[in-house]
Amino acid sequence: MPLDETLITCTTGTRRRTVLTAGLGAAAAGTFAAPARAEGAPALRWRLSSAYAKTLDILFGAPEALSRIVAEATDGRFQIQVLGPGEPVPAEGLLEAVAAGTVEMGHGPATLAMAKDPTFALATAVPFGLNARGAAAWWQAGGAAELFAEVFAKAGLVCLPGGNTGAQMGGWFRREIKGLADLQGLKFRIDGMGGQVLAKFGVQPQTLPGAEIYAALEAKKIDAAEWIGPYDDERLGLQKVAPVYHYPGFWEGGAMLHFWFNAEAWKALPKSYQAILRAAAAQVGAEVQAKYDARNPQALRRLVAGGAQLRPFPQEVMEAALKNANDVYAEIAAKNGDFRRVYEAMRTFRNEEYLWFQVAEYTYDNFMIRARARG
Amino acid sequence: MPLDETLITCTTGTRRRTVLTAGLGAAAAGTFAAPARAEGAPALRWRLSSAYAKTLDILFGAPEALSRIVAEATDGRFQIQVLGPGEPVPAEGLLEAVAAGTVEMGHGPATLAMAKDPTFALATAVPFGLNARGAAAWWQAGGAAELFAEVFAKAGLVCLPGGNTGAQMGGWFRREIKGLADLQGLKFRIDGMGGQVLAKFGVQPQTLPGAEIYAALEAKKIDAAEWIGPYDDERLGLQKVAPVYHYPGFWEGGAMLHFWFNAEAWKALPKSYQAILRAAAAQVGAEVQAKYDARNPQALRRLVAGGAQLRPFPQEVMEAALKNANDVYAEIAAKNGDFRRVYEAMRTFRNEEYLWFQVAEYTYDNFMIRARARG
Repeated sequence: MPLDETLITCTTGTRRRTVLTAGLGAAAAGTFAAPARAEGAPALRWRLSSAYAKTLDILFGAPEALSRIVAEATDGRFQIQVLGPGEPVPAEGLLEAVAAGTVEMGHGPATLAMAKDPTFALATAVPFGLNARGAAAWWQAGGAAELFAEVFAKAGLVCLPGGNTGAQMGGWFRREIKGLADLQGLKFRIDGMGGQVLAKFGVQPQTLPGAEIYAALEAKKIDAAEWIGPYDDERLGLQKVAPVYHYPGFWEGGAMLHFWFNAEAWKALPKSYQAILRAAAAQVGAEVQAKYDARNPQALRRLVAGGAQLRPFPQEVMEAALKNANDVYAEIAAKNGDFRRVYEAMRTFRNEEYLWFQVAEYTYDNFMIRARARG
Repeated sequence: MPLDETLITCTTGTRRRTVLTAGLGAAAAGTFAAPARAEGAPALRWRLSSAYAKTLDILFGAPEALSRIVAEATDGRFQIQVLGPGEPVPAEGLLEAVAAGTVEMGHGPATLAMAKDPTFALATAVPFGLNARGAAAWWQAGGAAELFAEVFAKAGLVCLPGGNTGAQMGGWFRREIKGLADLQGLKFRIDGMGGQVLAKFGVQPQTLPGAEIYAALEAKKIDAAEWIGPYDDERLGLQKVAPVYHYPGFWEGGAMLHFWFNAEAWKALPKSYQAILRAAAAQVGAEVQAKYDARNPQALRRLVAGGAQLRPFPQEVMEAALKNANDVYAEIAAKNGDFRRVYEAMRTFRNEEYLWFQVAEYTYDNFMIRARARG
């Protein structure tokens, strides 16, 4: 920051203060005091790489919103340039790139690093894990932020929650899953721990980018595919090639996303910029959830009108998947102390949360769902 | 701000920037650029009055947290002093005091002004209204913020969401409510629109501050009392005098709180301070919800261990209350155009939200509640 610009800043500051005093009326006049300790705001230009394609407008919009808020809160001094996946790093390598300082920031799921350490998956979502509100409560008031801070520090990363998709859908199937037998040999596009759990049934998990799912289903190279929920799924048009829309996506009862920071870059920030980033991430995170919750209902209506057949997964599939998931967790925990510690904390918090949720929240929602037509 | 302090600010700013450049490594070096337009940050000292007693630590803690975040984000330049109810205005007069500029800010429910205009109640919670996630989605992505901005502008107020309690409990009863007959003549401590709806059954709604509820129940001056949820209720010790703990509090399926601003004071703020307040309110709001969700389960366990008897309201009570509520809304809407417009928007959004929630969210939660013991 050149000296003359510094002077402009200070002058403008004084001028603005006068205007404010005038605007506040008699009650507030005279209450101004110089701050005990004033610090300057350095000019910074950072780069943020998103794990999400720009077509996923709610997800890609999150860092764009963060960038706008941070710029506004710092009078343009802290600029964050938002880049799509592949600019300059592919989504798969995003967390490593942030840790290495290739970019200062990233936005995406912790699951991107789960091949290296499955503990990361617990920060996003695991089969039969927390729902979105439970995940937020665990993170902010249940000890998760502190547990994960230790795990991520080992990888050179700091993070802040940055949105949640809510409970996802189970995906698109050419034929309805009526029982466990229908899962045998099923070629299902699904990533991560959900794939590991389903593989125990004989499902053959497939990895495919979103843009290739439609063609793969049409050419019968795969039998089914899960993606996100109605709003994002609608864009892929899968109801035309695999009309059975199963629910719930029990492997993502509420997928939390995060903003990732290079640990050194984070530590070097002034406290004021850290405070602004924490608050801006919270604002953006709430907006992501709100947008999904506001847009999914209408997308679901359009999908059903367009031929989607809504079907719950059979109870026997859910029950068997829960057992498989618990087996997978026990296997990982036996080899990975961090996973064991964080998973146990999540499980305890989840069970307590549902103990309470089944009382007021769930009874209320249950009544409201049934009363909807009369309200 | 005296001139010498201004100079200190700018000098510190320059020094800090050097440190930051060193800390960021090769990838980030050279990416610094002076901002296109730098503005100063005026020194401000505001007062905020809370509607909540300090013993309600989650609720009273919200503006305290906001004040800390804003101070940190502005390097101490924007100080917000947090006052309890009665300092200088009682909770009942809080919104008028903010509108008049007696204090620049407040924190509390919009229902404080519902006697003047019942439209305000729709911003907090009404019987059979939105749950907490629905309320957040409606506000942020469903058009509610814009609708309420118009209504509140007429009263000289600007507001930001500032937390949600989640679905509340139905309260403490000396005898179990087994049907509509048990509500006849019941002296029930309950405020606002919930009281209006219950009065149609012959309930006699009572207004009492939290601190007086225990004594009134013990002296049999009232038969029952609703307060908030397990965490806050525990402090009142009502299980000793009215052990039947009914649920859900169908008049508050998710009570949204707000930060209130004197409209003139808000407009006079620099854009950067407005951005910081919006983000800080979102962070604090998420924390309020997270704290309730994290602390209610254990409070509920302790209450039950201490003698509380958990009982759902009978279905016939819920059904009749829904009908009464719809009658109350029709009566108010016939006289109040703002209420009619905003209520219809809420009702439409709520019904769409539950259409979607019953699919993925509710099916997932339903399974998890039943599977809790096996997970």
